[in-house]
Amino acid sequence: MNCYLKKAEENLLPLHEYTVMPEYEKRTLQTGDSITLDLGNYYVGYFSFVMDWVDVYIDAPVKLAVKFCEGEKEIDADFSTQTSFLSSWLQEEIIHVDFPGRYNMPRRYACRYVKITVLFSPQKLTLSRFAFRATTSADLSRLTFPALSDSRLADIDKVSVNTLKNCMQRVFEDGPRRDRRLWIGDLRLEALANYYTFNNLELVKRCLYLFAASEKNEHGFVCSFVYENPVFVSGSDTYLVDYALLYAATACDYVLHTGDKETFLDIYPVVKAQLEGAHSILDEDGIISRQSGWFVFIDWYPSIECIIPLHGVYLYTLDLMVQAVEKLLPEDAAMFRKWLDEGRTNAKKVLYDAENKRFSNSRDKNQYSVHSAAWMILGGVLEAAEAREVLTAALNSPESKKPVTPYMYHYVIEAMIKIGMKQEAKSLLTEFWGEMLDWGAVTFHEMHIPGQPDFSAYGSYLTNSLCHAWSCTPSYFIRKYWTK
Amino acid sequence: MNCYLKKAEENLLPLHEYTVMPEYEKRTLQTGDSITLDLGNYYVGYFSFVMDWVDVYIDAPVKLAVKFCEGEKEIDADFSTQTSFLSSWLQEEIIHVDFPGRYNMPRRYACRYVKITVLFSPQKLTLSRFAFRATTSADLSRLTFPALSDSRLADIDKVSVNTLKNCMQRVFEDGPRRDRRLWIGDLRLEALANYYTFNNLELVKRCLYLFAASEKNEHGFVCSFVYENPVFVSGSDTYLVDYALLYAATACDYVLHTGDKETFLDIYPVVKAQLEGAHSILDEDGIISRQSGWFVFIDWYPSIECIIPLHGVYLYTLDLMVQAVEKLLPEDAAMFRKWLDEGRTNAKKVLYDAENKRFSNSRDKNQYSVHSAAWMILGGVLEAAEAREVLTAALNSPESKKPVTPYMYHYVIEAMIKIGMKQEAKSLLTEFWGEMLDWGAVTFHEMHIPGQPDFSAYGSYLTNSLCHAWSCTPSYFIRKYWTK
Repeated sequence: MNCYLKKAEENLLPLHEYTVMPEYEKRTLQTGDSITLDLGNYYVGYFSFVMDWVDVYIDAPVKLAVKFCEGEKEIDADFSTQTSFLSSWLQEEIIHVDFPGRYNMPRRYACRYVKITVLFSPQKLTLSRFAFRATTSADLSRLTFPALSDSRLADIDKVSVNTLKNCMQRVFEDGPRRDRRLWIGDLRLEALANYYTFNNLELVKRCLYLFAASEKNEHGFVCSFVYENPVFVSGSDTYLVDYALLYAATACDYVLHTGDKETFLDIYPVVKAQLEGAHSILDEDGIISRQSGWFVFIDWYPSIECIIPLHGVYLYTLDLMVQAVEKLLPEDAAMFRKWLDEGRTNAKKVLYDAENKRFSNSRDKNQYSVHSAAWMILGGVLEAAEAREVLTAALNSPESKKPVTPYMYHYVIEAMIKIGMKQEAKSLLTEFWGEMLDWGAVTFHEMHIPGQPDFSAYGSYLTNSLCHAWSCTPSYFIRKYWTK
Repeated sequence: MNCYLKKAEENLLPLHEYTVMPEYEKRTLQTGDSITLDLGNYYVGYFSFVMDWVDVYIDAPVKLAVKFCEGEKEIDADFSTQTSFLSSWLQEEIIHVDFPGRYNMPRRYACRYVKITVLFSPQKLTLSRFAFRATTSADLSRLTFPALSDSRLADIDKVSVNTLKNCMQRVFEDGPRRDRRLWIGDLRLEALANYYTFNNLELVKRCLYLFAASEKNEHGFVCSFVYENPVFVSGSDTYLVDYALLYAATACDYVLHTGDKETFLDIYPVVKAQLEGAHSILDEDGIISRQSGWFVFIDWYPSIECIIPLHGVYLYTLDLMVQAVEKLLPEDAAMFRKWLDEGRTNAKKVLYDAENKRFSNSRDKNQYSVHSAAWMILGGVLEAAEAREVLTAALNSPESKKPVTPYMYHYVIEAMIKIGMKQEAKSLLTEFWGEMLDWGAVTFHEMHIPGQPDFSAYGSYLTNSLCHAWSCTPSYFIRKYWTK
């Protein structure tokens, strides 16, 4: 066990548990019958129920199908015909219940609805005393809700917090129905929202140490994800260069928020290596270059090009590094400052189409996207006035590619706030996240395209994650910028 | 909790456990592959295995079908098309394995073979370190094997003991793949075999108390079965009159074997009531009569008639009662002796066709069966010489109904021994049980018809129990009568 892993373990606190018992009357069922429970909210944890007999003791195993649904559309869908590469995450169990009494389902589930179908029972049976033992590492007693005059914003805040709470487990998970692995892209946004809500600092620290402990590739980049339970395993088949940089950004956020220099300096060699790795792959024009066998994840927009956004992530992270080490490590700060200035200058020269006021370049097949505009602005390539023009045009142009994930929308909103478009940012956030509320969301979804409720990047809407970490940041914006 | 139930609990001893680890090399599998393990013997208990990844960590739940087979025929059979009323006892689970590491299957299983099929895995996986944690209340350290010159008999003895061991759990079960309920008919034969093998007296006592605690019908008969885990429930929908009598017989066997008068007298009111109940339903000819809503179980032979056999069970039990209470309760002994004498006289007068030397009567639709001959002989209705003629004729006649269960064969063998046909008894036992060995049995089966390996009383051979308590009594005969 390396030293970082030991520290990650030290910061694993016990989860909070609370049991939700939806009020349902005892139901009598027989072969072919089913019952659907609405837990009233979304929970992550462990389900149990009591099976009992009616007139005659049940003298053979009862076969039940128990289905856990994030959303209503799953309740009547046939999971057996799902062929998406994520379909084994659909939550349906076929179980045999041998005895009357409480039955504890074997796995952890994430859901709002539970549907139980009696596939076979030799006699009538009853189901009752349903219980969902929910877990989270978010301490609900720490949570307060800001006084907001805008009730729509207040609703969005509540659903954001609920999303975050359910994703906070032994690590910051991305979608609790799925991987239970720790991804950097999600971690960063969850950590930001966490600072303004539950403020669980041990969890952030734990996750920073987990990545510090992960395998690195030949350029020193950390893996984009790790598994930590039941054993620690690095996701060493996936190096996303932007995620590696955002790991450094997450470390900067942490020290800027907490002032915990000790932890920051402890992992600093790994943090610094991410920037050095990116700097080492600048091309002859000083623009970050594509490397074979590496990937970039900017958004789930199909075939989105990513060199311009990635260069933006590089600059954005350098900016944070300068702030984080300015006083701690002035020499390094100066180096990062120099790289940042050069990177901005090169980006403006090479990637910016000043005539058309857009970021578009042959490196990205001349693709025009909101993504490139937002990341260039976050990288500080343009002055505010010009940036406003560029971003507004990209958002409004019928030609431009638009984000499909709340993840990318987070960075668009952040870019707008950076360049003084606070009101527009609030409107966009309210409109984008608000539409999910109109569709019945109690947690925010992994993907969202306005007006397209069935959109999926995975071939089937059913495999989308309806409680997704990277969608929880409205609470960050609301509480940081829009609270009286 | 009534007083009998408390005593039943006091006699519940911890089970013995031992882990069987079949030697299989680690196997690499992917979607669609399967592996079949032969545990080398039949076991009852809990199965686990280790799943691991090969090159890449398995990043989504693996879906496995895990099938536990008593016999080889189940391995490739499709359980989903089984429609027998016992088919929910077929042992197949669909499970999701979320993590690498040891996976413990959720239920108790009874099997020799385990087949695992990978229904879905996103990556290659390995399965290894298979372990079956077997349980039994038989103390194997108490067991010795008699020196037998007849190796066929020695093999039959081993398989009998193995059958008994697997059926001895918290109670004497009938077929461990199935009910886990305690049936009187099985209990009696298991207890007899137990006295000559493991001699677990607490278990017999526990079972006697469980029935003493059970509900009684209007004639004082105990239920034919009880459930005891997780809660005590009487099988109050099933009163088999012969089983009620055999409960009394089991109590007599117990006190005659152990000399434990205290326990016997404790349950004596219930024991006595079984005989009184039977005596109260004698008809005008002094023959036990059919009552509406009650049943008799003599054998699984389809449409076997049962009044003559039942009257035999009544006499047989009276005979045991006389022996058991002769010294303890002389007045009762005299009463039972009187009932026995009358019952024998009436049977010979009414049920015996002296001309044709067979037991056949309109009460049983004039059916001619080995069953009626054996039970009348066990009831002591005929002198030995005449009995030998009657039984030999019934066994050899092409007209007579023959038993299909080892349960009924037990009583046939016992009848033969009673009337001095020891050699014939040994031959019949060797032939009947021996054929199951030829078919590959490592435990004895619930049903057996020579030459008909696919016979079932349940519509499908697959739902027959291949390890069945009532088939374990060769060890009783061998060790009591045929050991030097």
